Formats: sequence, C-alpha cells, structure tokens
Amino acid sequence: MKILVMNCGSSSLKYQLIDMENESVLAKGLCERIGIDGSLLTHTPAGGEKYKVEAAMPSHKEAIELVMQALVDPSHGVIKSTDEISAIGHRVVHGGTYYNESVLVNEDVKKAIADCFDLAPLHNPANLMGIEACEAAMPGKPNVAVFDTAFGMSMPEKAYLYALPYEYYEKYKVRRYGFHGTSHNFVAGEVIRKGGLDPKSAKVVVCHLGNGASVSASIGGKCVDTSMGLTPLEGLIMGTRSGDIDPAIIQFICEHEKLTVEEMTDVLNKKSGVLGLSNGISSDFRDIDDAANGGNHLAKVALEAYTLRVAKYIGAYVAAMNGVDAIAFTAGVGENDKFMRKNICAYLGYLGVKIDDERNNVRGEERLISTDDSKVQVYLLPTNEELAIARDTLKLTK
Amino acid sequence: MKILVMNCGSSSLKYQLIDMENESVLAKGLCERIGIDGSLLTHTPAGGEKYKVEAAMPSHKEAIELVMQALVDPSHGVIKSTDEISAIGHRVVHGGTYYNESVLVNEDVKKAIADCFDLAPLHNPANLMGIEACEAAMPGKPNVAVFDTAFGMSMPEKAYLYALPYEYYEKYKVRRYGFHGTSHNFVAGEVIRKGGLDPKSAKVVVCHLGNGASVSASIGGKCVDTSMGLTPLEGLIMGTRSGDIDPAIIQFICEHEKLTVEEMTDVLNKKSGVLGLSNGISSDFRDIDDAANGGNHLAKVALEAYTLRVAKYIGAYVAAMNGVDAIAFTAGVGENDKFMRKNICAYLGYLGVKIDDERNNVRGEERLISTDDSKVQVYLLPTNEELAIARDTLKLTK
Repeated sequence: MKILVMNCGSSSLKYQLIDMENESVLAKGLCERIGIDGSLLTHTPAGGEKYKVEAAMPSHKEAIELVMQALVDPSHGVIKSTDEISAIGHRVVHGGTYYNESVLVNEDVKKAIADCFDLAPLHNPANLMGIEACEAAMPGKPNVAVFDTAFGMSMPEKAYLYALPYEYYEKYKVRRYGFHGTSHNFVAGEVIRKGGLDPKSAKVVVCHLGNGASVSASIGGKCVDTSMGLTPLEGLIMGTRSGDIDPAIIQFICEHEKLTVEEMTDVLNKKSGVLGLSNGISSDFRDIDDAANGGNHLAKVALEAYTLRVAKYIGAYVAAMNGVDAIAFTAGVGENDKFMRKNICAYLGYLGVKIDDERNNVRGEERLISTDDSKVQVYLLPTNEELAIARDTLKLTK
Repeated sequence: MKILVMNCGSSSLKYQLIDMENESVLAKGLCERIGIDGSLLTHTPAGGEKYKVEAAMPSHKEAIELVMQALVDPSHGVIKSTDEISAIGHRVVHGGTYYNESVLVNEDVKKAIADCFDLAPLHNPANLMGIEACEAAMPGKPNVAVFDTAFGMSMPEKAYLYALPYEYYEKYKVRRYGFHGTSHNFVAGEVIRKGGLDPKSAKVVVCHLGNGASVSASIGGKCVDTSMGLTPLEGLIMGTRSGDIDPAIIQFICEHEKLTVEEMTDVLNKKSGVLGLSNGISSDFRDIDDAANGGNHLAKVALEAYTLRVAKYIGAYVAAMNGVDAIAFTAGVGENDKFMRKNICAYLGYLGVKIDDERNNVRGEERLISTDDSKVQVYLLPTNEELAIARDTLKLTK
C-alpha cells in the first residue's frame, strides 16, 4: 500500500508518497506559485537528487497532474504507475464541530469542509481545492480528510467554551478548536508507546514549538485542553503571532494608531510574537538567539518571555490534569533548540523534572532527555504529520 | 492617628475613618449619585445605625464636605473635629510606569495621575477629583495616593511585556500592569506573616475572586506575575468580563455581528464572563450556584469553566515561580464560597495540596484551610484594601 499525502495551501501544495509496508517516504515535493506566473515543482525521490520542473500550473489540478508525472517519471520517479497509489490523505485545517476524527471523503464531507470556510478562510478553500483536484486527476481513488482540529474535539465544555455571550457559540460555533492536532495526537501517542505509559490514563503535555506553536494536554491520548483557540493566534508567543494578550489592547491600539480591527488582527498575526517583541530583529529563533548572544537586550527578553509562556502553559495544563506523566517537545524549535528545552524545564523542578544534559544534547532525534530519576519523563519527539495522515488514510481505506 | 480612606468613582465616593492606634474602623460610608439628581450619603458609625442624608452633591467637593459633617455630627459622628484626621489615603487605580509604591501627593503626582487618564479613563479622573476635593475641603492635610497598579511594577520584563510590536510599549506604555494590587499586596503580606514564611523568598499565589477577579504570584512579597493586564479585562473569567480569549475573536464577532471594536470591547467587559457563558442567568455567583443546583447545564459549565481557569492560573504561576509555599483565597467569592475553594484545590493534588473540609467550612474569616500535612499552606484571608491604604498613608505621613 502506497499512500499519497497532500497538504494544499492557496498557492502551494506539499506532498509525500509513503510506502506503508515500512512507513518509508518514497518521494516528497512541493509545488509553488500555483495560479501565479513562475509556477515551480520541486520533487525529491528518497535518496535522490532534487528535480525541478518549471511549468504552468493555473490551478491545483494541473499541479497534481505534474506531481503524478514526476512520481512515475522513468528517471526521477519512484513508482511505475499511479495505480500503485492506493489512496490520498489530505491535511484539512478545519473540521468545525463536524469531525472528531479523520474521515473518508464524500459529498457530505466536502460540504462540511466548505461550511467551515468562515472559520479558516485561508486554508479550508485550498484544502477543498486539493481534494477536488485529486478526485479529477485520480478518479475512483479514495480520498481521506485528516483534520487539524479533530484532536481538540475531545475537550470538555469547560475547556472549549469561552466566557462570551453563549449565542456566539450557538450562532457561529465560536469555541476553542485548537490546531496542530495531527501533530499533538501523533506525538502524544508515540510518547505513551515509548514511555510504556497507560494508554487509558497517561497524562501527557506536548509542546509543538515551531514558527507557529501550541501546547496540548491529553489524558489517555484524548485532548483535554490546548492553547490555540478559535484561530491559531491564541496561546504561546510565536514567530510573528502575539499569542495571549489583554483583549482590550485591540481597541486601545485601534484608537491610538488609527487602525481598523482587521488591520490590528493582521498586526497580531504577522508583526507580533518574537519579531515584534525584539523590535523587528526576526521571527526566526536562530536570528533571535544570535542577537541575544550578541548582547541585544530585547532579543534576550523575547526569548525569556517565550520560555516563560511555554512554562506557564505546561504548569497550567499540569493543573488542569492534576498531574503529568510525560512532557514532549516537537517541531522546529522543540526539536532543534536544546537551550530552549533546558530553559523551559528549568521552571519545572517543583514537578520533579530533571533534564540530563548529555541526553538533551541532540537535534531532531527521538530521545528521552530526562534523567532516569526524573519524576516526569521528558522527550524530544520529532513530529511527523505526514506519517500520521498516511496512517489514518490506511486505516480508513484498507 | 486617624486616617480617612477615600475611594472615588466618577459618581460615587466610599470612605472609611480608621483609628491607627488599633486599626479599628470608626465609621464608614458611601456617597452615591454625585453630580446627578438624588444624591445620597449613607454613613455608618462603628457599632451604630446607618444614617442617610439626601442632599445636593453637584461635585465631589460637596460630597466630601458632607462626609466631614457626618464624621463630626454630635449624634452620629465619631470625632469632635476634622482636626483629628491626620491624613487622607486615596485609592488611585493607575499609576502607569511612574509609581511602584504609594506616594505623598504633590503637584507632580497629580500630573502623573492625569497622564494616566488614557490608561484608566473611567477611574483616574474620578480619583484625581477626589484628591483635589480633599485638598479644597481640608487644606494643608497630607494626601497619599495608593495605586492599584503599584504591586505589579515589580514584575520582570519577561512577564510584563506583551509579544506586540515593541513600539506600542515605547509610545503608549502598553504592558501588563495588573490591578487589585493593594489587595494582592496586603494578602500576600499577611500570608507570609501568618504562615511564618521567609519574607525574602516565600512563594505565594493570591486568588482575589470577586466580581472582578485576578491571581497574582509573588516571591518575598514582590509581584512576579499577575493575571490582569493593560486593563482589568484580561485573565480569569469574571462576573461579566470574558478574561482571556483568542484575540482574533474580536474581528470575527465584529464582522459577523456588525459591531465596532468599541462595542465589542464593551461586550467583553459587560456581557461576558459567567453572565455570558450561562446564557444570561446572572453575573452573581450565588445566582449561578442556585441555577446549577437546580440542574441548569450552562450554569454548571460556567462554574466549571471559572474553576478550571483559576486552577490553570495557579498552575501557571507555580511554574513561573518553580514552586509555591502558600495559596490564599480572598474577596467575595474567595471568602464566601467554600465549594469554589474546594473545587479549585481539587485540581492541585499533584502539588500536595490537601484541604481540611472542617477548616474550609467558613466564611469571611481568616483561617488556614489546608490540613497540617498539606505540602502547601492554603488560606482564606479576607482582603482589606482600606486598611492597606491607611497603613501606607500612616507610613508616609507620620
């Protein structure tokens, strides 16, 4: 069984072809500038060279046709025929309150994805385009939708309802959804397995620290709280996103800077986070690290504030679960920044967390980084959303 | 030494006359509808009957003159002459970045209070009016300003800076200030004293749970974090305030409900919290309790969400301090609702928190409510902002 995993943006498309016999990636690639001049496909067969194709991609349909050509190409392809692809798994950002797990796509599913355009106006239309393009390019093959919000659907009302007029929930389904769900679910599951924890009752905190970043709390692999909310803006400090702020700041800045609420929300999404707090140094933690090491005060404060926010979320979620068995770090910063992991865990001595500096001296590799006598297991656990999507797709189609 | 404590709102004025020999309240009272038809003074001498005066109060100056008459009145007064009042202590909501402690009022102080009108447009103008009215009515007597924000000024940058464009801090001093500071400071100090904790290093979490509500973390009596922010909207779920939400919700609701950002901020301040979440039952926790006990589902969820939010803030602050020695509950809900205290602490078993149900069966009375073998001391500790203001006033004027 070979499964094609698709992640479609409005003008881009990422893919991986995974052989589910051994969960190995056969090829992966990226289409950029779909619907824009200068469209480009970059295709990389496993163990091979990058291969680039410049060709017109007026829509996702043409892009997917080029992907299929690349996959079967005699020189840089990895399969003989697209018949070998047994199913396509799609990342879909928002499943609203419709889906709490992955689902085989049919007309109702497509309608539900469209119903959620309002909740994810940048992502869901592109995700649906990708599904429809695959249906057109590979008629008859099953498509599976894997929702970024599905993991959060197991939260109890006390965690997902905001203290807003209840009619906003009734009319518009304004609630906490959470994102990065596929990653949180994958990592929490792996931690339970690796750690030999009770699959029914293990209390796990996952810190997905990338350019976007979120924390989740799960009991027995079921999400009980997560830091992103109605949108991916809430929660942690991120590369360019503010995370939590006093909601009254929006009116205050709109008034003083003569901004509309749309413009202000844009500032919160694109000009805030460590980029804003560092007074414009960078949204990339490597640049912030360099500046901090070079003595820049605001870069140092941005890192400290980021670290404190993560530690506070971990502390909050440990309280929400009344305890914790394991904490895992994943995604770009979580997998690559040993100082960040160490500094976050430095807040958690009261939980009996002890980091082993030797073990923590690692990048992007699955590893227990706590000492053997740490009361809480701490892991570096690389996320693999594509594999998680492929696994769900296999389960629903075999 | 007798000290008059004043808390002026835009159309109201609360006062207490406190004898600092034994910190006893000699009289207290309230002027309502200042500047509006039907102004009313209600004066209560200690141990005596309420006494009401209906008289014109076109401004705070006339209101204060009536208060002084009431205090020296032969029948219901408590002093012979206003000469016995040695100083006046004023609650001032916002001291901006100017003041990290109480201060003797002079022209510079009044200018600073006026400079902060922008940050507390409802409160600071009234607070300044009260000061100026006292200067006019009791010329020559020292006035002391006690700021609600002073306690929060000891927070480190990593806790008080938002991850917003740094220019907002430079231009407008947008930062976390925190409110209820006089209460948090008072209660944290009392807890250290009662608990025999180290005054330099004790880690204390104070939960000020009234209709407005906030949590603070302090080390050695110095605030290191607190849940209210630029304004009193951030943090906990309150009677009518949302506390923390995804900041992107503001734009979402503005668009869908055709609201301006001012109208939406008003909804977040006045129609949200347990009032909103319970679908309009009440902002009063007694009503919500009754409805929940009567089987109302949303009332139950509102209480659960409120409880969870407090527990999460406690957990977050324990992480921020890497441990905790004592937790205190204060203000209306914190002092009177034993179930709320019990339910919040039920999340904290992992810290070794154990509540003694017998001890916890109490209202508005200072008491250790944890068991003797609880790893964290938990207190019910009634707040007394007036006494805290009087103590600071005494210190600065004797």
